[in-house]
Amino acid sequence: TIELEMKIEAIEKGGYEHFMLKEIYEQPTSIRNSMLGRLNTVNGEVVMGGIEEYEHKFMNAKRIIFVACGTSWHAGLVGEYMIESLARIPVEVEYASEFRYRNPIINSDDIVIAISQSGETADTLAALEIAKEKGALIYGICNVVGSSIARATDAGSYTHAGPEIGVASTKAFTAQVTILALMALTLAKKKGSISESRYRELALELNNIPNIVEKVLETNVAVEYISDIYKDAKNFLYLGRGINFPVALEGALKLKEISYIHAEGYPAAEMKHGPIALIDADMPVVAIATKKNSYEKVVSNIQEVKARNGKIIAVVTEGDTAVKEIADHVIEIPDVDDFFDPLITVIPLQLLSYHIAVMRGCNVDQPRNLAKSVTVE
Amino acid sequence: TIELEMKIEAIEKGGYEHFMLKEIYEQPTSIRNSMLGRLNTVNGEVVMGGIEEYEHKFMNAKRIIFVACGTSWHAGLVGEYMIESLARIPVEVEYASEFRYRNPIINSDDIVIAISQSGETADTLAALEIAKEKGALIYGICNVVGSSIARATDAGSYTHAGPEIGVASTKAFTAQVTILALMALTLAKKKGSISESRYRELALELNNIPNIVEKVLETNVAVEYISDIYKDAKNFLYLGRGINFPVALEGALKLKEISYIHAEGYPAAEMKHGPIALIDADMPVVAIATKKNSYEKVVSNIQEVKARNGKIIAVVTEGDTAVKEIADHVIEIPDVDDFFDPLITVIPLQLLSYHIAVMRGCNVDQPRNLAKSVTVE
Repeated sequence: TIELEMKIEAIEKGGYEHFMLKEIYEQPTSIRNSMLGRLNTVNGEVVMGGIEEYEHKFMNAKRIIFVACGTSWHAGLVGEYMIESLARIPVEVEYASEFRYRNPIINSDDIVIAISQSGETADTLAALEIAKEKGALIYGICNVVGSSIARATDAGSYTHAGPEIGVASTKAFTAQVTILALMALTLAKKKGSISESRYRELALELNNIPNIVEKVLETNVAVEYISDIYKDAKNFLYLGRGINFPVALEGALKLKEISYIHAEGYPAAEMKHGPIALIDADMPVVAIATKKNSYEKVVSNIQEVKARNGKIIAVVTEGDTAVKEIADHVIEIPDVDDFFDPLITVIPLQLLSYHIAVMRGCNVDQPRNLAKSVTVE
Repeated sequence: TIELEMKIEAIEKGGYEHFMLKEIYEQPTSIRNSMLGRLNTVNGEVVMGGIEEYEHKFMNAKRIIFVACGTSWHAGLVGEYMIESLARIPVEVEYASEFRYRNPIINSDDIVIAISQSGETADTLAALEIAKEKGALIYGICNVVGSSIARATDAGSYTHAGPEIGVASTKAFTAQVTILALMALTLAKKKGSISESRYRELALELNNIPNIVEKVLETNVAVEYISDIYKDAKNFLYLGRGINFPVALEGALKLKEISYIHAEGYPAAEMKHGPIALIDADMPVVAIATKKNSYEKVVSNIQEVKARNGKIIAVVTEGDTAVKEIADHVIEIPDVDDFFDPLITVIPLQLLSYHIAVMRGCNVDQPRNLAKSVTVE
């Protein structure tokens, strides 16, 4: 039976060496599935059932508060950026474990949104219950249908990423970000904070993201090459700005989780307020430097790292020249609208952590000390 | 003249080997000076000029937003906890460098408070200007009188910490937290969100904090002993919860800045969502485990670290037994009210980074790559 179980597992892995790699490669599909029935691919119209149901509440919300842990917390930070920018509703993102113990200020015109792949995260569930007591609308973004959080909430949107087996979350993250993008578009349209043409442009670009992700996955060979060079590093720094700051956090978390390398994410400009003291030839720095809002600022952050003999691995936009000249390695990805950049910048970072972990001989799908869902406090 | 300059510097250091150590030891005085003329030590009445001047604005504020960088950003996180808990006004804390580039949602009934030791931090100043354009009241918490931020703001409160020479901020941080505590008390009193007796109790306890800090500085010998054991560690993790979470961030930042060891702060409960994979015998963990709100939760986090052969250095309340049984080292400090704990838990962490840096032969007062105030973006 052990042999049989191994065969079943091999079939389940669909030819991939690990569930994590399979799940990374499933992302064009899982992102598409998360948009299915929500984004009309012909006219670009977005319909989110959970929001329709509580439209009045959403339109009058004074604040949206995300409660989450780990990777889901990073998705919340991306959502904050999208919703504040597009729908102009103030958003806060809280660690569920901190929120629940601090007697948070919650009113009945606040909306509290829990993000959790499993829907069973103990701290997140407890945070929701506090918000419910205080009269807020509670909303869930979960992957597992019928999970505790899904059942506890007033409304919600499932991510439809399919079962995620690898302990380090990958396709669940991009599915969460997809849902948050759809929510931001819906809220912006209803609030009238976006023009009709911009709305349609973004909706159709979002619809095309799965094809772009397919192309980004082709960076795998380049990323594997880079991984081999840095697999023995003891520390990594990840830098991003704006909507890519949470991606820097997420990239660092992946590396921590499966390769046991101490990696830390930082908003790039904060580097000068301390972390730059760490920079030397032994500290590789992964910089998200796509041609977005703060491109020039990130370029100058990269120059600062290079001036201190740091090694730079940069994720850049195809055709970039400025970063290519100064970085040690570049990973080129297609150009997309700022709002959707996290859906593609995170892919090479997932692959980087995967390859480094494999090369270090780590148990990629079941890293030491970690559980897939944290159902205890 | 070189000899003369050296003599002058020696005199300025007042017998201490480094400015940083001198400034750590000045904290009983600098905290007291920051309360001078604001806290009436006889009747416990707090008067903050800057708030009086704009009382109407403060009483009607829908949100308070802190903008800051580095150590000042950590002080902002402590302030968030104090003001939300005591005065029940929603508070957000933003990295100035992120805030200014994201088209933030600011209304004329928001109050934006900049925190900056030098008052010259470029990103913080730029963030303030954006907030001013949007009609918010802008307030400054600076140490340097007449600095750019002090001049740009509508009102403010100086910290009176005295000149800070060491690049790694110590006494400026505790002075900022002191000002934030005074502001939280003032706002709570005016809003009626605190009882008269609790207000007086807290005010008088705050008044006594300089004496407590004096006692906490006596942990120096114990901290030096521990520093010698861990001075060669490559990585550190710092854990805290609630109002001590920002202290964990600050402790980690100090170690990064002056000893060039990669240290990272985390809210303790998030450890299970990734960082715990890093834990082994080579990864010392500094846990702030004083007898506060979430004491039992922190104890269980410490047990998780020990179960994975991690080394624990814990800051505990005098007389603690539970943590003492499981931690490798404890640093005992007196019991104070939760709200003021950061003013004393941070002291041993400052000393820890100082001693480790000295033992590693680092240039404590002028660490590599860092400037005292970041006046460029």
